[in-house]
Amino acid sequence: MQGTVLYGPGDVRFEERPEPKVLNSTDAVVRTSVTCVCGSDLWPYRGVHPITQPTPMGHEYCGIVEEVGRAVKTVKPGQFVIGSFAGSDNTCPHCQYGYQPSCAHREWISTAQAPRLRIPLADGTLVATPDAPSEPMLPSLLTLSDVMGTGWFAADAANVKPGSTVAVVGDGAVGLLAVLSARVMGAERIIAMSRHESRQKLAREFGATDIVAERGDEGVARIKELTKGVGADSVLECVGTQESMRQAIQSTRPGGFVSYVGVPHGVELEGEQIFFSHVHLHGGPAPVRRYLPELIDLVLNDKINPGKVFDLTLPLDRVAEGYRAMDDRRAIKALLRP
Amino acid sequence: MQGTVLYGPGDVRFEERPEPKVLNSTDAVVRTSVTCVCGSDLWPYRGVHPITQPTPMGHEYCGIVEEVGRAVKTVKPGQFVIGSFAGSDNTCPHCQYGYQPSCAHREWISTAQAPRLRIPLADGTLVATPDAPSEPMLPSLLTLSDVMGTGWFAADAANVKPGSTVAVVGDGAVGLLAVLSARVMGAERIIAMSRHESRQKLAREFGATDIVAERGDEGVARIKELTKGVGADSVLECVGTQESMRQAIQSTRPGGFVSYVGVPHGVELEGEQIFFSHVHLHGGPAPVRRYLPELIDLVLNDKINPGKVFDLTLPLDRVAEGYRAMDDRRAIKALLRP
Repeated sequence: MQGTVLYGPGDVRFEERPEPKVLNSTDAVVRTSVTCVCGSDLWPYRGVHPITQPTPMGHEYCGIVEEVGRAVKTVKPGQFVIGSFAGSDNTCPHCQYGYQPSCAHREWISTAQAPRLRIPLADGTLVATPDAPSEPMLPSLLTLSDVMGTGWFAADAANVKPGSTVAVVGDGAVGLLAVLSARVMGAERIIAMSRHESRQKLAREFGATDIVAERGDEGVARIKELTKGVGADSVLECVGTQESMRQAIQSTRPGGFVSYVGVPHGVELEGEQIFFSHVHLHGGPAPVRRYLPELIDLVLNDKINPGKVFDLTLPLDRVAEGYRAMDDRRAIKALLRP
Repeated sequence: MQGTVLYGPGDVRFEERPEPKVLNSTDAVVRTSVTCVCGSDLWPYRGVHPITQPTPMGHEYCGIVEEVGRAVKTVKPGQFVIGSFAGSDNTCPHCQYGYQPSCAHREWISTAQAPRLRIPLADGTLVATPDAPSEPMLPSLLTLSDVMGTGWFAADAANVKPGSTVAVVGDGAVGLLAVLSARVMGAERIIAMSRHESRQKLAREFGATDIVAERGDEGVARIKELTKGVGADSVLECVGTQESMRQAIQSTRPGGFVSYVGVPHGVELEGEQIFFSHVHLHGGPAPVRRYLPELIDLVLNDKINPGKVFDLTLPLDRVAEGYRAMDDRRAIKALLRP
């Protein structure tokens, strides 16, 4: 089998890899129907996360179960499944509270940009659809593995409710799907912060009512202006930098909610600033597994079409082009077909 | 009139001050029944907050209204009132959301360690009791002006619910009243972190079910041990240092809640640590005004007796002794009688 391996900054190869096998009795092996490149894959691709050895890539996937270990009870060969980027047992206390990426037995998935992959803790990680989905459903179902679940968590963690005024910082795929999530949760006003026309367009399609192209202090001032000086009820920080975090906190009204769902890079929060801002803060790796059943329903019933974030489709063996296109911001998100 | 003025580290004087007057139509002048020294007064007293000029002190008070400006509608001369340490109009959007210390017209109260004081925005800052309270009620009513309201906010901001497992970091008056608040809100288990016998005793009296004397990593390990490795649902950070904040975050289960109610000093939160901790964070200056009606009821109906935190009573003109005793941790909190 061939799979995707990152050798160093900008050096993505599609090369021979060992065949995935059931190693533990709780494992499954899944044949990938579609996979994709994640915004977070760009951190090591850009050298921001140094890598010390050739590293297999990919954590977003859906596909057909080929084989399961003898302890696996809830999925079986032939079923179509979607799983979280974080393998979890879904039974430990942290999972039971709904925070599966903090599972006591968590294993990050990291070999999904390949035609087949091993999934640890299959019962606690994968969710099967009732039937095999139609081909056009695949991109949207794929997003539930990470990017849509992460946008959903951004809205949920920021307490988006019917009638809320929401601002979304970041116009990557997560930010755009955070807009969609806020719309589904009933937000009355959704301000998308974006400077790119094609992304602004998709943000509007997903439910954004206002677009703010300004950034930094000017962006904050614009949000304040749009909210009569009060600030937004909920600000969804979907970037992960010091600047975006600062912008998010300052755009939120006292007592409002800031969520953060992108792995932070170089972010330091100053205690006194947070204290006097009076905001709520919550975030982290999205508990995709918690949301999967609900989001699968929304996709299968055509209530949401998050697959629209894929504006580039490539055969899996051309995965390197997908990384390049996303790195150059020529593509929002690249879908890969084995 | 004489009042309390801080001249520099350790230099508290009780000296001649101008008589307070109604300056604006929304002001009231209140004759102080009792006042006290706050833990936060110790920051400038210790020189941690440098002061550049003689500074009047005190922000906790209750007493009898003597005079009101012509725009004041809800309190009148002769009434007994308790007010927040933060003057607020209680009508701006931030106040309406319940975050009065972020009021668009906020004025910090800072002259309360005196026999009389001017209260700005009297309608939005003060709450009158139905009748003049009895003398023994005064200490408990006084705590509602800040320290009890702050402990209450610590529990509220950390989402304490019936059945919760709660840990309280800090055994000052705020920490002890956070224990009491958690008990009133129905927490099943309340772990007080304290190394001082007299404070441990009061913590138990207020409802603590467990005492942890260890600090830092050992304190975290002990909380984990007491919660079967999971961590507490809610951790109430009532100190405001880097060490106490780190301890609070690490003692909380993923998905749990950390509140912080002491002005942070030198606190920096590392983005990645917070991200992967999966905790909720909320805090800031306590919205005492929001809680006053409810807490006045609890005191007047003898449901709570927060006045027990006062273990030293002094005539107001000996205020300097109160600062000294609290600075030396000989007293938890000093009550001052004009």
